Amino acid sequence: MSAFSDREKSYMELALSCAARGAFLVSPNPLVGAVLVSAGGKVLAEGWHRAFGGPHAERELLTQLAGVKKSTLKKATLYLTLEPCCHTGEGKKTPPCLPALIESGIGKVIIAHKDPNPRVAGGGIKALKKAGVEVRLGCLADRVHRQNERFFHWISTGRPFVSMKVGMSLDGKIATKTGESKWITGDESRAFVYDLRSMHDAILVGRGTVEKDNPRLAGSHREPRRIILDSKLATPLDSQVYRDDNVLVATTAAAPKKRLAAFRARGITLKIFPKKITLKPLMRYLGKRSISSVFIEGGAEVFGRAFDESVVDRYYWFVAPRIIGGSQAQTALAGEGIARLASVTTMNFESVLKCGDDLLLTLLSPVAHEAFLACGCE
Amino acid sequence: MSAFSDREKSYMELALSCAARGAFLVSPNPLVGAVLVSAGGKVLAEGWHRAFGGPHAERELLTQLAGVKKSTLKKATLYLTLEPCCHTGEGKKTPPCLPALIESGIGKVIIAHKDPNPRVAGGGIKALKKAGVEVRLGCLADRVHRQNERFFHWISTGRPFVSMKVGMSLDGKIATKTGESKWITGDESRAFVYDLRSMHDAILVGRGTVEKDNPRLAGSHREPRRIILDSKLATPLDSQVYRDDNVLVATTAAAPKKRLAAFRARGITLKIFPKKITLKPLMRYLGKRSISSVFIEGGAEVFGRAFDESVVDRYYWFVAPRIIGGSQAQTALAGEGIARLASVTTMNFESVLKCGDDLLLTLLSPVAHEAFLACGCE
Repeated sequence: MSAFSDREKSYMELALSCAARGAFLVSPNPLVGAVLVSAGGKVLAEGWHRAFGGPHAERELLTQLAGVKKSTLKKATLYLTLEPCCHTGEGKKTPPCLPALIESGIGKVIIAHKDPNPRVAGGGIKALKKAGVEVRLGCLADRVHRQNERFFHWISTGRPFVSMKVGMSLDGKIATKTGESKWITGDESRAFVYDLRSMHDAILVGRGTVEKDNPRLAGSHREPRRIILDSKLATPLDSQVYRDDNVLVATTAAAPKKRLAAFRARGITLKIFPKKITLKPLMRYLGKRSISSVFIEGGAEVFGRAFDESVVDRYYWFVAPRIIGGSQAQTALAGEGIARLASVTTMNFESVLKCGDDLLLTLLSPVAHEAFLACGCE
Repeated sequence: MSAFSDREKSYMELALSCAARGAFLVSPNPLVGAVLVSAGGKVLAEGWHRAFGGPHAERELLTQLAGVKKSTLKKATLYLTLEPCCHTGEGKKTPPCLPALIESGIGKVIIAHKDPNPRVAGGGIKALKKAGVEVRLGCLADRVHRQNERFFHWISTGRPFVSMKVGMSLDGKIATKTGESKWITGDESRAFVYDLRSMHDAILVGRGTVEKDNPRLAGSHREPRRIILDSKLATPLDSQVYRDDNVLVATTAAAPKKRLAAFRARGITLKIFPKKITLKPLMRYLGKRSISSVFIEGGAEVFGRAFDESVVDRYYWFVAPRIIGGSQAQTALAGEGIARLASVTTMNFESVLKCGDDLLLTLLSPVAHEAFLACGCE
């Protein structure tokens, strides 16, 4: 049986929706929502983290309480999707919420999820309890984990959360034998991909995709950083992905000096690997630069490499109700692959959605699924 | 608005369930169910076609009416999933139902679907009306069409209804790069395949599958005919598919004489093509031999050819939540495939089912979908 009543869960639902209003705007910060409810069940105030660098959800909410009596606050319950922060320091844009929260005199706090930031990690809850506030933890924790899976992963591992999007025919092809790939999936799927891009800090593609499709890699709500894998800097500098300096190219020492100079002259950040571009080190590099999430869009070689190097945390798999056939057509994942079926991991279909005529199958990688189970969700 | 009330539909539902009790037993006859309901809403009798060659559903039902008053029958309604037959002739195992039905004195008949058999095709309905019986047509016609899609297709085209079953990884692979294919999908999916086999009159595989997997191709409820494509009769005669003479091999004139003799000596039926095995002519040949449905199980070459030759009516697509990866792994469909995306047909996902950890996606081919829409369903 759940430790929380349906009533309590519904207030936490409200806090979750408040948090969601910061979507696309707060990264690499987490989405946070706060709802204050009186003893009689009246919603006294709502707050959410609105933009990166702006005030936290708790502060947003506390500023609305000027007219509320101390005695009302003492009996009220604050619903917080995330543990309040108690730290200051390097890179932190705002003062900690905890002192202000304690000072407000709010008597009870229900928190969905601990802050996985190692600088908080339960410290906020401890401090609240020490100040005499009644604290309960774990209401809809799983929902908050999902809402912040990218931030949680990044803050606890230092590496971005990596999503991979494949759009393929029913028979696993991403291009015909003549190389045609526009479009296998339908309009609705492609529109949704723009939203998925905006949910991530960066979009990653390989050289071939730039050369063949010359994509803009635009998002619907913001322009994520574009990451291009191009070991010899062969992609033309007039490609759309190089339209501004919101781009990073991973390359190798094998790239011609002239090309290196030309890319640098354009203000493009280069990450140069000695021999071969490897994705795990690249992800660590990106994580250090506050890229908390990466969206891999292809092509088949990059998909294959991402799978072979086990860097993927979540799969978005668009399947069109169309068959391409043919032994020469491009299969979704190239690369090495797995030799023995005994080594193939079985995942779970997390959701199956209709997206226009297509299906969108979402799956968590085994590692990301473990992290989810270990989050202390109810 | 539907011409039929919810009450009428629910009695037709009952007739559909009666019909379903003949599953696996009546092919290549259709499944048929009958329910007689009094003016007061009492179910007076139920009948269904129980076995190939046995009495039809209507006759089954009529034998139960000895004690029922003529006046009750006059006011009763008979729910029939399929138009009653009015023909006799070659290959027909039983006398037509119509005279007995008229003689019974039942006053009203509601029929779901016309009999697509060109020898009936509305003739049963006309005759009933001529005899003064009130007849209405079309209640849950779509459900009856689905229930009998294999029979309907065969009786109206002369070719078997062809289903294709693919069991693949998320990335469209049916074997690893080392050729391992046992098993990509899970236990539940494989158990369900046994039922799907039993729903068909024949199972078709290529030479490679026999040589590599030596499958039994057994069904859960009956043993369908096994059809092997083997252009040079290279498959070993001690393969499990040759365990009895319930097998047909499609081959070519290029097969060695010795092998032809050896296969014949074992009582195996051979269909010899002059140069190349082509599936459309093979299907016509099978249709003439009362094979009303064929279940294609692989491998990739056969899948590819069936797709390239447009012989597939229904797809059963099992997708495992596992990734195999690799450019050398076996993709689901080999063959030629389609060169331009403009020529690729968009189908519909008819159903998406969870089957253990796997998904089962079912789709109707465009031609089969047209036939369904043209069936006069409401």
